[in-house]
Amino acid sequence: MRIILCGFGVVGQSLVKLFVSRSEDLYAKYGLKPRVVGVFDSKGSAVDQSGLDLEKLILVKKEFGTVKNYAKTKNNYSGLDMIKNIDADVLIETTASNYKDAEPGMTHITNAMKSGMHVISVNKGPLALAFPSLMELATYNQVMFKFSGTVGGGTPILDYAKNSLKGERITSFAGILNGTTNYILTNMANGLSFDAALNDAKSKGYVEADESLDLDGLDAAAKLVILANWVMDMKVTMPDIKCTGIRKVTTENIKNAAKKKCAVKLIASCNKELEVSPKEISVDDPLCVNGTLNAIAFTSEHSGTQTIIGKGAGGMETASSILRDLLDIRQEIART
Amino acid sequence: MRIILCGFGVVGQSLVKLFVSRSEDLYAKYGLKPRVVGVFDSKGSAVDQSGLDLEKLILVKKEFGTVKNYAKTKNNYSGLDMIKNIDADVLIETTASNYKDAEPGMTHITNAMKSGMHVISVNKGPLALAFPSLMELATYNQVMFKFSGTVGGGTPILDYAKNSLKGERITSFAGILNGTTNYILTNMANGLSFDAALNDAKSKGYVEADESLDLDGLDAAAKLVILANWVMDMKVTMPDIKCTGIRKVTTENIKNAAKKKCAVKLIASCNKELEVSPKEISVDDPLCVNGTLNAIAFTSEHSGTQTIIGKGAGGMETASSILRDLLDIRQEIART
Repeated sequence: MRIILCGFGVVGQSLVKLFVSRSEDLYAKYGLKPRVVGVFDSKGSAVDQSGLDLEKLILVKKEFGTVKNYAKTKNNYSGLDMIKNIDADVLIETTASNYKDAEPGMTHITNAMKSGMHVISVNKGPLALAFPSLMELATYNQVMFKFSGTVGGGTPILDYAKNSLKGERITSFAGILNGTTNYILTNMANGLSFDAALNDAKSKGYVEADESLDLDGLDAAAKLVILANWVMDMKVTMPDIKCTGIRKVTTENIKNAAKKKCAVKLIASCNKELEVSPKEISVDDPLCVNGTLNAIAFTSEHSGTQTIIGKGAGGMETASSILRDLLDIRQEIART
Repeated sequence: MRIILCGFGVVGQSLVKLFVSRSEDLYAKYGLKPRVVGVFDSKGSAVDQSGLDLEKLILVKKEFGTVKNYAKTKNNYSGLDMIKNIDADVLIETTASNYKDAEPGMTHITNAMKSGMHVISVNKGPLALAFPSLMELATYNQVMFKFSGTVGGGTPILDYAKNSLKGERITSFAGILNGTTNYILTNMANGLSFDAALNDAKSKGYVEADESLDLDGLDAAAKLVILANWVMDMKVTMPDIKCTGIRKVTTENIKNAAKKKCAVKLIASCNKELEVSPKEISVDDPLCVNGTLNAIAFTSEHSGTQTIIGKGAGGMETASSILRDLLDIRQEIART
């Protein structure tokens, strides 16, 4: 399977390491032989139509901070250049999410689909701004579009709701979908001020470069858009979410909640309305998880409420979700 | 799809009600038209090769306490008689679990497979005593064998571990797999004695007719056998489980645990050894759920620990798991 990899940050590097460490197993067990034919980062690109040497790629990135130095004859392909000039089966989009215009991810994804490539995205931007039309574009071009890693990181929340609960009707759901704000709120419950808790989260590398994505609830809202489209068959985008972040949560609010055996959590919910906002929930509710954990509770017609809890983010976790998507694509291709 | 239904207790009746209430939706969405051609309970049977009238079946059972009075010419087919004399595509086994000889479920399942029927079982007995050989028998006879409802009731734990986590390697797992003992231990933590907690559970209908199945950990051990075979590809049966129940747990034990911010739970675990026994776990662990809830935590190589929490039992919950299995079979048949 020939792959173009957009972005080579923590997730991209974890994925390539996974390809290396599990190459035998992936081939023996699933018939998957991933061949990365092109990759780029913010400083340059590396291309080899017959497949890049993945161990070398990791070493080069480590030594020079970019994949540009992989070959002697350097090239400077953008994602779009690669899609236009290199033959590939799958595009994997891992550049940073932005909720203004979703670029450059949007250009990568739409052009790859038009060129007949299957697409795996862990970039939430394009999905948050244009989920319904991207699904249509994929269908029109008869390509597969997968995005397991956008919600829950390595925890397969989307697949669980769509496939494991097949035949069931999910009537509503609510979740803690952003680990950073959960970490901050947990530390505030343990006595820290908002600023101290935020600084602690920053020092641990939990906060996005643009802190607004976490603090104002945009990251959680993007995940809610994806869940609402995928699980509930709604046709919605970011402007449909009523979104409030955690900036106005005070230690006073949290103390008052604690008196009622509750905790304040940033809850993304789908129950008639789509909303992200800080809410009090009972500490006895399975949804009430602490630290950087994510959790989501699906309420179904016949089998009650089911809660899934897991690590929401992390390079290797997200890489493992990309691998799952690749295996799905591999299996689907083998079937047809 | 022609179905023989073995047993018509709470689960069987819930399933038939589900068929009735969702008939249009099941046909429109999944192309599934379930036709129950034979059903029996402890007092008699009802048979119609062209499909029983399901609403009438429910009314008859309600009025007479048995399906025997469905037709004027009564018959007294056993499960085995039905398998031998009626054409059907799927056998659904819902008779009570027993861990001595697993009968009559074992006879139903093996004979149905030999007759070329696909089998869905929510009866844990045959799986606990003979999982590896039943899987072989199904493969040999080229039939599908499904048992989603045996672990977690309506919560699709088995499917989650096997399919949603595809490509991931699960290294160990631990769970609270029996709601009755969890209810008793929760009430003991709230101050009740073992006997008082047991009587309360009995009065609510939570305890099996043979209370040993719950209290001595046999139900949890059976589920552990199924998980170990299905998720970890182990070839094990009941005698391979080191099993201790909750009869010796004292309020003293529970108080001591509470001092350490822990709770005593009946934990079924797979980590080199297969074991069911009361253990202290931190109340902050997502696995530490109360009341009749079930929970299981899978630890995986790349995506950390993931916990699923849900109602473990209940007629409608288990019926919804049978429906999922039926849809799987329907889909698999359509594919080939």
